[in-house]
Amino acid sequence: MRIVIALGGNALLKRGEPMTADVQRENIRSAAGHIAPLAEGHELIISHGNGPQVGLLALQAACYTRVEPYPLDVLDAQTEGMIGYMIEQELVNHLPLGRPCATLLTMVEVDPEDPAFSNPAKFVGPVYGKAEMERISREKGWVFGKDGDSWRRVVPSPDPCRIVEIMPIRLLIEKGVTVICAGGGGIPVVRAPGNPRKFSGIEAVIDKDLASALLALQVNADLLVMATDVDGAYLYWGTPRARRIKRTTPGNLRKVDFAPGSMGPKVEAACRFVEATGKRAVIGALADIHKLISGETGTQVTPGWDEGGDRIP
Amino acid sequence: MRIVIALGGNALLKRGEPMTADVQRENIRSAAGHIAPLAEGHELIISHGNGPQVGLLALQAACYTRVEPYPLDVLDAQTEGMIGYMIEQELVNHLPLGRPCATLLTMVEVDPEDPAFSNPAKFVGPVYGKAEMERISREKGWVFGKDGDSWRRVVPSPDPCRIVEIMPIRLLIEKGVTVICAGGGGIPVVRAPGNPRKFSGIEAVIDKDLASALLALQVNADLLVMATDVDGAYLYWGTPRARRIKRTTPGNLRKVDFAPGSMGPKVEAACRFVEATGKRAVIGALADIHKLISGETGTQVTPGWDEGGDRIP
Repeated sequence: MRIVIALGGNALLKRGEPMTADVQRENIRSAAGHIAPLAEGHELIISHGNGPQVGLLALQAACYTRVEPYPLDVLDAQTEGMIGYMIEQELVNHLPLGRPCATLLTMVEVDPEDPAFSNPAKFVGPVYGKAEMERISREKGWVFGKDGDSWRRVVPSPDPCRIVEIMPIRLLIEKGVTVICAGGGGIPVVRAPGNPRKFSGIEAVIDKDLASALLALQVNADLLVMATDVDGAYLYWGTPRARRIKRTTPGNLRKVDFAPGSMGPKVEAACRFVEATGKRAVIGALADIHKLISGETGTQVTPGWDEGGDRIP
Repeated sequence: MRIVIALGGNALLKRGEPMTADVQRENIRSAAGHIAPLAEGHELIISHGNGPQVGLLALQAACYTRVEPYPLDVLDAQTEGMIGYMIEQELVNHLPLGRPCATLLTMVEVDPEDPAFSNPAKFVGPVYGKAEMERISREKGWVFGKDGDSWRRVVPSPDPCRIVEIMPIRLLIEKGVTVICAGGGGIPVVRAPGNPRKFSGIEAVIDKDLASALLALQVNADLLVMATDVDGAYLYWGTPRARRIKRTTPGNLRKVDFAPGSMGPKVEAACRFVEATGKRAVIGALADIHKLISGETGTQVTPGWDEGGDRIP
């Protein structure tokens, strides 16, 4: 099978862990140990998140005030380099000798008319007090949102429309290369107004699960796996009645409200891929990845209802 | 022709310019304008430097003290992401519609027994006063060297031995993709002692011209171009007798002492490529790139002596 595996942030950094290079590498090493054996029988395309990492780069840049902090598209590109490198190296170390891997920088085109641009909602970077927030807002035109008692920059999270490097990505997959791409949801770009042939970066972040669903569609994948730190999508999450949805359809899954920014985008990504292709998507724990792929665990999302499917009230 | 173009630091940032994202992008846009027309008749592989950029990341990380600064291999990977993205985007914007580009993260294997490891000589990162230098030296084991009145960290600059991702790089070139790779000389890796199958990153920086010569050799390039801000290698540089070497052989060029860290590595890279392949290398100004390729200007390095060759005393 051709499989797109979207690695959740926890594959790189577990909740509460310090964001050192060593900690991230240790987590990535463990993830690579789970994933590498799959390359024996499958074509793998691996994407990943970058939330904490892009936040750290923004913090570091904000501390060093002699150079204006770089825009988000450039910071995204930095994280694609850093995280892609660590994943690639650990995969190479776990794959059979001579099995090639490649990490491609990935630009993802978004629509400048996307409603997200008039409603920036995704937190990035450091927290600020009110006075500082107001000063930066005046100076840079950034939009801020309340995060607890502090303020944080909010940026748009538009829908991914097109993966610019899809042709080289496909070429490499077809030649047996394990490809790492679309990290952090991809580097957001728009076509320049008045010149649709030219791309420019834009201050936004793209959801990595939605970008992974687009990637899976555009590489004609057989399966989309969203590997995270919980074992599936739950009904009644956080209550005593909580139960994992084992197998269902996009139509049923869309009846449930999942946490935005967490399970929500994973469910939406699964639904989009299954609806567009008639193939299967699955959400579950990275440690269970072999059983997620064989269909034995996680939340399996399939196009048609079947006997094993969960009833969703 | 298949051409490897090594972009000098000045293609990204001219001497004395502030290191903002806008300034770098403007320079890269100009470089892309020179390079893109070449893609009509040639296969292009583009590499680039990263000295000032890796220095900025090290400075930013040193200012934000709540997370231990990342090691150089990881910072190198960040710059491959950032600079690669800007070059790729500007190239895509200048290339004919639909002409594909790809940027590959590149690990370059070095020999852990390389003498550079016992003689670290390449400055990286911020300058320190004596007391702080001594504290950091004790805490982290970093080696420092005197840079003017201050101290700066010095790291090894070992010879590049092998480009780990050479197979996917070749595959893409053969399919007509313009490839950006080996940025900053590549991410330095060594095989783990006791386990030659496993790579790990190492605190070093690889000279980007030497890495580009290796790249040119390994992709079977017809020509290696080192594009910088001077119009060639000079005899008697900095004196009234200064004159550009127009055409010569590696044997002749090796008789001259060029500035280490500047023209020296370019000349060495040109000599290595020409000696190993019997093909041509050229050093000159990016703005003259078409004439560098046609052989009309720059310092042309060719395997055999010919009538037009410069006599080098």
